[in-house]
Amino acid sequence: MNIAFFGVGNMGGPMAANLVNAGHTVRVYDLAPALVRQAVEKGAQAGNSPAETVAGAEVVISMLPSANAVKGLYLGAQNLLGSIPAEALIIDCSTIDAATSRLLATAASEQGRTVIDAPVSGGVGGAKAGTLTFICGGDEASVERARPILLTMGKNVFRAGNHGAGQTAKLCNNMLLAVHMIGTCEALQLGADNGLDPAVLSEIMQASSGRNWSLEVYNPWPGVMDGVPSSNDYQGGFAVDLMNKDLTLAMGNAMQSGTRTPMGALARSLYGLHGGQGRGQLDFASILQLIAGEPPKH
Amino acid sequence: MNIAFFGVGNMGGPMAANLVNAGHTVRVYDLAPALVRQAVEKGAQAGNSPAETVAGAEVVISMLPSANAVKGLYLGAQNLLGSIPAEALIIDCSTIDAATSRLLATAASEQGRTVIDAPVSGGVGGAKAGTLTFICGGDEASVERARPILLTMGKNVFRAGNHGAGQTAKLCNNMLLAVHMIGTCEALQLGADNGLDPAVLSEIMQASSGRNWSLEVYNPWPGVMDGVPSSNDYQGGFAVDLMNKDLTLAMGNAMQSGTRTPMGALARSLYGLHGGQGRGQLDFASILQLIAGEPPKH
Amino acid sequence: MNIAFFGVGNMGGPMAANLVNAGHTVRVYDLAPALVRQAVEKGAQAGNSPAETVAGAEVVISMLPSANAVKGLYLGAQNLLGSIPAEALIIDCSTIDAATSRLLATAASEQGRTVIDAPVSGGVGGAKAGTLTFICGGDEASVERARPILLTMGKNVFRAGNHGAGQTAKLCNNMLLAVHMIGTCEALQLGADNGLDPAVLSEIMQASSGRNWSLEVYNPWPGVMDGVPSSNDYQGGFAVDLMNKDLTLAMGNAMQSGTRTPMGALARSLYGLHGGQGRGQLDFASILQLIAGEPPKH
Amino acid sequence: MNIAFFGVGNMGGPMAANLVNAGHTVRVYDLAPALVRQAVEKGAQAGNSPAETVAGAEVVISMLPSANAVKGLYLGAQNLLGSIPAEALIIDCSTIDAATSRLLATAASEQGRTVIDAPVSGGVGGAKAGTLTFICGGDEASVERARPILLTMGKNVFRAGNHGAGQTAKLCNNMLLAVHMIGTCEALQLGADNGLDPAVLSEIMQASSGRNWSLEVYNPWPGVMDGVPSSNDYQGGFAVDLMNKDLTLAMGNAMQSGTRTPMGALARSLYGLHGGQGRGQLDFASILQLIAGEPPKH
Repeated sequence: MNIAFFGVGNMGGPMAANLVNAGHTVRVYDLAPALVRQAVEKGAQAGNSPAETVAGAEVVISMLPSANAVKGLYLGAQNLLGSIPAEALIIDCSTIDAATSRLLATAASEQGRTVIDAPVSGGVGGAKAGTLTFICGGDEASVERARPILLTMGKNVFRAGNHGAGQTAKLCNNMLLAVHMIGTCEALQLGADNGLDPAVLSEIMQASSGRNWSLEVYNPWPGVMDGVPSSNDYQGGFAVDLMNKDLTLAMGNAMQSGTRTPMGALARSLYGLHGGQGRGQLDFASILQLIAGEPPKH
Repeated sequence: MNIAFFGVGNMGGPMAANLVNAGHTVRVYDLAPALVRQAVEKGAQAGNSPAETVAGAEVVISMLPSANAVKGLYLGAQNLLGSIPAEALIIDCSTIDAATSRLLATAASEQGRTVIDAPVSGGVGGAKAGTLTFICGGDEASVERARPILLTMGKNVFRAGNHGAGQTAKLCNNMLLAVHMIGTCEALQLGADNGLDPAVLSEIMQASSGRNWSLEVYNPWPGVMDGVPSSNDYQGGFAVDLMNKDLTLAMGNAMQSGTRTPMGALARSLYGLHGGQGRGQLDFASILQLIAGEPPKH
Repeated sequence: MNIAFFGVGNMGGPMAANLVNAGHTVRVYDLAPALVRQAVEKGAQAGNSPAETVAGAEVVISMLPSANAVKGLYLGAQNLLGSIPAEALIIDCSTIDAATSRLLATAASEQGRTVIDAPVSGGVGGAKAGTLTFICGGDEASVERARPILLTMGKNVFRAGNHGAGQTAKLCNNMLLAVHMIGTCEALQLGADNGLDPAVLSEIMQASSGRNWSLEVYNPWPGVMDGVPSSNDYQGGFAVDLMNKDLTLAMGNAMQSGTRTPMGALARSLYGLHGGQGRGQLDFASILQLIAGEPPKH
Repeated sequence: MNIAFFGVGNMGGPMAANLVNAGHTVRVYDLAPALVRQAVEKGAQAGNSPAETVAGAEVVISMLPSANAVKGLYLGAQNLLGSIPAEALIIDCSTIDAATSRLLATAASEQGRTVIDAPVSGGVGGAKAGTLTFICGGDEASVERARPILLTMGKNVFRAGNHGAGQTAKLCNNMLLAVHMIGTCEALQLGADNGLDPAVLSEIMQASSGRNWSLEVYNPWPGVMDGVPSSNDYQGGFAVDLMNKDLTLAMGNAMQSGTRTPMGALARSLYGLHGGQGRGQLDFASILQLIAGEPPKH
């Protein structure tokens, strides 16, 4: 299948590579030439312009860092939407606000194009391993049409609802993730400060009602679990700055819908304070350092 | 085996019944005659006094509602500790503060008796089904000695550390439980307020990084999951007042150890506010009502 | 001076009356005929349409409940801006988001009109007594031109900065107000629960570093202070729903500017939870009921 | 009057000096010889032991850093209480938990001695200037007897209630202080991030309903106010670690009385996080750095 792929950074790069490995013809475009070269080394073709990249495409996938980047690509002065073959399916995997996803869907519809939002959960590790979860928003037929392509890059495809619903569900999930990650750090710290072994306490809570994803596969206490960022100086993984971006979007949503999210709001404050200490590039499990009072490294 | 059992209420009653069903000789004592009668109907014997109850006991189990009750029983004017056969193992399953557990252990040691703390996770449902988790504090040999007895009433036995460690681990777990339960309610409410189906969103988050015990087996949104308190007007289950008791103990611990627990502290405030609205007897998943703004029932 | 006045409800009504009493010719317009009649009884004239109302006006004042109402009035299909005499000064006293204030200022400038934002602090009592504080955004000359008019309705006029700055400053102030009001309620409740007399404790804190406006002129504990809403079943004053509106706007601002406001965010959550209990119409000092756990009245 | 004074550090030193300046005979005792020497240079006499220090005293004053220090002094192995002349009045100005104050009062009463708790508000500046506020707990007659002595060191003397009430009121006040200080920082930061001048915003809020002690005399934004710690790199003033001590005591109180203090609990968390970043020795207004995300100094 001919696939156009926009944005081949930490996430998009391995995703495009998995498409190549599955036998698809993938043409990539990115503002950073180095990223394009890396993709080409893995078997992709380089597009010289957005319009050239989408020429003849059956599927267009985008993985961009912000709503402005998405709007700039599809709805910018050159109206890329109009250059995309009418029968192609557009899959926007960027994590952006739901309103922009709906705006894009409306613009596409007006020009006879079809788009779904399909933000992902699973991080860089999931992108490389091809085990991402895609959380889609759009009509059922389009999501079903996207499913086999998405399963080339991941292992789960959900339809959360209509256009924008994928974004909303992603934000709800990440808000909950932030809450239980911080809660897990606090519980481990409270135990450690009262003489418990964090590894033993982790095992107990994981077998009890405290169980959650952070304990199960992403333990934030250094040394308790192998192969996770906490055991690698919080390098790699999902950056504090990205969690802050998602929490800020989630709180923006909550303000608009009038939803009360006291824990979510506190999580956003705490990740903001943590990032404000110069730790925005660390993995988000490093919030343990804020709780623990780890003195800043010099 | 001859077992003395103190406190046969919502939790202790079914626990004692499971011991009877396993073939043990169980003599029970409780200040409420009706509870004793219920236990006798299920095959236990009635003790006429604490001292008579422990006569000849090989194991003494207590499941009491407060630290004062535990102190009153073992360390009161009649010095029950001294009446317990010296070779018996004392297992205190009450959820109390760790300092009291250590006080009891020291007093027992001074009189040549052996005690462990073994608070439980799993609630009334787990007590009836015999699927409780016991989180023990005490020396290894004593915990191993208790293990087969505890496995008659539960399916997991953990040793968290020395005397009091069972209490501490239980509190850490329940603090984390409160945090992810409230976080789960907020995420579901935020999704619902933005047009998502809570059942679909639950499925998505349970398959993603938001996954936690509340989503997995105790969904707080009415109707999403069968057989849980949220689908039964929040009746049964683990009462808000009991969660408040545990959170207050956890915060007391945190103040003494100087641990920072911003989410735990907020969880304690929110459960306190919820109980303050006259909902202390509802299951703790009813915190959704505080978040959702359910108008108080008249 | 000829003044056109839009919006003569709880706030705008007494403000317009004070302008009449100062000898100005005031023509009013409101979608609610009853409010217009009340204003006419106090000496104002009734405008039959927005355009007629502004005919010949030297000053145009608006006091409307939402950004949409402000946009609808000035920027709606009939382009009221274009009907306002070019030399008139437009003073928008509505509390709305700063972005809308800037949008209005830009539109006015494009049509050669002059506007300032001038939201107020002081409530209905201040509007009646003519003791409001006006917090203005706009160029210095325009604010100086507005000053004598505003001092007819209030006792303080501040210029916070350029267009929109009045709104921002108002929101900052009200966020801080919410924070110290809740903090005051908590301190009084903590004292009362530990045996102190709230009146004595109020006096001590007001003379100490806990001092704040809530303690000074708006004590939330019933019976401590005469003539305040807390001593009148929390009737009158500044409604919980209005505080929620302001806090939601403030949090929206904070999300856009990336500001961390942990206490402000919690205040928004708590006022939201309080309003969610069916108490949105009570004065905002009634947040004491949420803290105290006052059972809902039936 | 013959006065024995225990603890002549940052607070006790200037307090003792003010007593000397008022013409009293002051004998001091402190574990740190350098502090004793400083006091002697200002006209005090040095006591060689606690017992010698209280010999012949008409008033005994203590200003110690912890409950253990207070218990160690008065109730230690040497039973200093019994060495104090029976007719002397004991004034404990230390900020400690109310339970210890009541314990001391009971022990004093049993030995025929009279004590009041009289913790202070006003900081080192107030101690030097003789403008402290004393918040007393004890019987009315004893507080009246202490009043003229206390007014030598301060300008306000309040009686909060019986023994321990001074401590409780002090903690309530300081919890409220922490809340409005953080709230003030957040409001100023939110304004600054949206283009306002913090000095102008401070003036507006101080004239509006946001008014509080932090804005009035202790503005946390560097450069807005002269002579306060924020304009001196947060040196001097009231240390973050001391605020943490008071907030931890306040939360301990709240847990025992079952009081819900969501803002107070968050304030304790935030000051704890701030101290955990290695800033415990800075003035408490430096919490602005946590909110602002000031990168740690290297």
